[in-house]
Amino acid sequence: MRHATGISDFGIEGLEEILARAIQWKAGAHPKHLVDRILGMVFFNPSLRTRASFEAVMARGGGSAIVLEVGNGVWKLEDRIGAIMDGDRAEHIKEAAPVLARYVDLLAVRTFAAGASDEEDHADPVMNGFRNYSTVPTLSMESAREHPCQGLADLMTARETFGSTQGLPVTLTWAPHIKPLPKAVPNSFLLTAAAAGCEVRVAHPEGFELQGEVLAQAQALAKASGGSVSLTKDQGEAAAGSRVVYAKAWGPSTAGGLKAEAVKDHPDWICSPELMGKAAKDAIFMHCLPVRRNVEVADGVLDGPWSRVVDEAENRFHVQRSLVQWLLEA
Amino acid sequence: MRHATGISDFGIEGLEEILARAIQWKAGAHPKHLVDRILGMVFFNPSLRTRASFEAVMARGGGSAIVLEVGNGVWKLEDRIGAIMDGDRAEHIKEAAPVLARYVDLLAVRTFAAGASDEEDHADPVMNGFRNYSTVPTLSMESAREHPCQGLADLMTARETFGSTQGLPVTLTWAPHIKPLPKAVPNSFLLTAAAAGCEVRVAHPEGFELQGEVLAQAQALAKASGGSVSLTKDQGEAAAGSRVVYAKAWGPSTAGGLKAEAVKDHPDWICSPELMGKAAKDAIFMHCLPVRRNVEVADGVLDGPWSRVVDEAENRFHVQRSLVQWLLEA
Amino acid sequence: MRHATGISDFGIEGLEEILARAIQWKAGAHPKHLVDRILGMVFFNPSLRTRASFEAVMARGGGSAIVLEVGNGVWKLEDRIGAIMDGDRAEHIKEAAPVLARYVDLLAVRTFAAGASDEEDHADPVMNGFRNYSTVPTLSMESAREHPCQGLADLMTARETFGSTQGLPVTLTWAPHIKPLPKAVPNSFLLTAAAAGCEVRVAHPEGFELQGEVLAQAQALAKASGGSVSLTKDQGEAAAGSRVVYAKAWGPSTAGGLKAEAVKDHPDWICSPELMGKAAKDAIFMHCLPVRRNVEVADGVLDGPWSRVVDEAENRFHVQRSLVQWLLEA
Repeated sequence: MRHATGISDFGIEGLEEILARAIQWKAGAHPKHLVDRILGMVFFNPSLRTRASFEAVMARGGGSAIVLEVGNGVWKLEDRIGAIMDGDRAEHIKEAAPVLARYVDLLAVRTFAAGASDEEDHADPVMNGFRNYSTVPTLSMESAREHPCQGLADLMTARETFGSTQGLPVTLTWAPHIKPLPKAVPNSFLLTAAAAGCEVRVAHPEGFELQGEVLAQAQALAKASGGSVSLTKDQGEAAAGSRVVYAKAWGPSTAGGLKAEAVKDHPDWICSPELMGKAAKDAIFMHCLPVRRNVEVADGVLDGPWSRVVDEAENRFHVQRSLVQWLLEA
Repeated sequence: MRHATGISDFGIEGLEEILARAIQWKAGAHPKHLVDRILGMVFFNPSLRTRASFEAVMARGGGSAIVLEVGNGVWKLEDRIGAIMDGDRAEHIKEAAPVLARYVDLLAVRTFAAGASDEEDHADPVMNGFRNYSTVPTLSMESAREHPCQGLADLMTARETFGSTQGLPVTLTWAPHIKPLPKAVPNSFLLTAAAAGCEVRVAHPEGFELQGEVLAQAQALAKASGGSVSLTKDQGEAAAGSRVVYAKAWGPSTAGGLKAEAVKDHPDWICSPELMGKAAKDAIFMHCLPVRRNVEVADGVLDGPWSRVVDEAENRFHVQRSLVQWLLEA
Repeated sequence: MRHATGISDFGIEGLEEILARAIQWKAGAHPKHLVDRILGMVFFNPSLRTRASFEAVMARGGGSAIVLEVGNGVWKLEDRIGAIMDGDRAEHIKEAAPVLARYVDLLAVRTFAAGASDEEDHADPVMNGFRNYSTVPTLSMESAREHPCQGLADLMTARETFGSTQGLPVTLTWAPHIKPLPKAVPNSFLLTAAAAGCEVRVAHPEGFELQGEVLAQAQALAKASGGSVSLTKDQGEAAAGSRVVYAKAWGPSTAGGLKAEAVKDHPDWICSPELMGKAAKDAIFMHCLPVRRNVEVADGVLDGPWSRVVDEAENRFHVQRSLVQWLLEA
């Protein structure tokens, strides 16, 4: 049985297969590949694109989706083994996951990082709880560690624009925000771009390092794909000549000792038309959305010639449809 | 591409076409006219009838619906152009609308009036934001300015009862409430009844004037349809001989300088069996629901022989099905 | 027109018919018995299993479901006849129920006990409001008085395990909790097991008596089915030789004068491997879920050889599918 809670579930070979089918299916009529299939979606956190795109995947494919919001019409869930459950969490994942698996054909979970510790977040306890106790394929709609569907949609957008991503210079740049955000999206862009053979440049201020295990995994994927990963603290240097600029806010490294307020210390890291001017002439701009205009990214970029953010969001639909097919056909 | 965010989108000709098909389809088996169609529904405010009836429209027609509740499992949305998004609104309509439009075939939005200013509400910024940035047909499930689906259901109910609405005396009477309510429903009843050739009488206490632009639009529609619009502050005079009495609470005119508390100053404006006794012998009572019994309308009216409120609510289904067809067939 | 808001709606004959079809259909492919059928689901309280299983019933059967959460995106509802509605309840069941019934083919309602008075809860005002004013079959997804779908799933699980339930010794034992819970689940297990011919033993501490009318109804059902019902305050005595141990927390009898805090006074009533050791060698453990591990039931029971809680939850799907068929075929 296949799962898709992180890139290691499909690897370089699966990535190429999923992207190829996503691009192929986008060109034609919607296949009815999901007749009689039910996707159960469990949300611990809000969503717009993810929820709407997965519901559309199931409807267009002839199947259906069940949406459950934990703590909002659904009991709060416990994930700690051996817990004495006398708090506000009324149900354990040990029951919730296998029970839901009896009703549906696939189980999708969204659970953001708690943010207290990079190490704890990377252990991904809630997502792994569902994965361990589910008896049907489980997929991530963003967990503490990764957001694999976003990474797939990002790479699909680059492939559509440039044909190949082998050796493509792409920049993942940190962006300012009003609060520290999880690292799942930058992790997944980094890992997926590395697996797709890109020349990945990661730029962020001091103290916003990504987690070491993720960086090591990205280096290993780049080695296998013929790509590369480099780190810098100079945003302009990273952007120079890049054909993709990917802006994303994330919180400080918990190992670095920085406080959450540090996210507001670098307003000059906003992604601006000036920064885009340093990139390649045919460079595109990407962001996973939602984006805080004029905080993370200037209006001039989002409303300018570079932006592919709406196409990128549309591609969530296409890669997810292909990913669901990949999960079910095993 | 057609939209339906207000009566000006379909006008008198469209109104007649939509009502005719609604009445025709009600008499037969559910047509499967929405196979492979997805309706995206974005709610900024609560709903019972609107949500259930639109979901039923899509299911009965062979399609499906995606329900998104802003601020309740979905990010809060910004509508101001050029905003520095450092508050609680995490996503701009400039992104949300075109992204959702990539997943669905129609986009429906509910967004109540803010109530601070009649002029601002009539500019309808959220609804118009979706309309401007969506690349698929957009329809209103009630906005700050109008509730066109309610107006259509109201007129369908009158047509079913009386055959024709040409020259039909109908009264829209203000009703008491515990708080000031938006004016979208009275606006739409007024506009639709005027467009359908009714002799519309609007009764309300001093200070509860409807917005000037809406009144002017209603007069223009009445002129074109052969109907009329008159205003009075005498509820009994308005009801005398009326064949439809439509009760609805709404807030004070912000131009009139009245405070919100003024809504409690007129308990005698409750719609009572005595008032219905002044109407025509075959008069019917209508209300958009939800209705606060014994505050807006007495039990004796709602449980009496006049009430058509459940039929009227059922007609939401029929007119919306016809409206969706009208939007898609253009 | 049939309803299913309590066991008296189907009785012993209906129970056998519903269980037989549930077991028969579980063995084969999903029948498409619900094409063009819409289930409206109204939740006054949270749900995981109930919501997911009913949505799965409709999707697997070829129909669809509409989910409405009262007070969470849907107006709060009034049930008192003659009320002056000037509080926070914006809509009366007198309107909400018949309106929803115009959009759907079946209406399902979840409304927990208020808990202030056993007598008021047993009058079941909200569920009966929907039942009285709905013009389509109404079914309970748990009300103040009963949870008939749970009772059906419990008995189906016992039947699957032991073939027959005639004369089967089963124990319903009270369990500790952090707060007083409603009595609908113990009521329904008691009533359904009595109707199915079991030798039902009910064990609880002093002051946690079930409501007298329910006990009398259970005795009458047992008499008709050839089963029996006995009460004890000795948990071990009840469990001795039992082939089903059913643990469930519930609040104190309001007639007994106990305070809500009393639920914490009996931690030794936790269902433990020691207790299961007193039961028959082939005994199974059941619980309706959600269960608070190590408060109500020890990990050793839930993770041990006795537990059927996931099968029992799966059977919610099967009995509900059969119950919906029973409601529609009348």
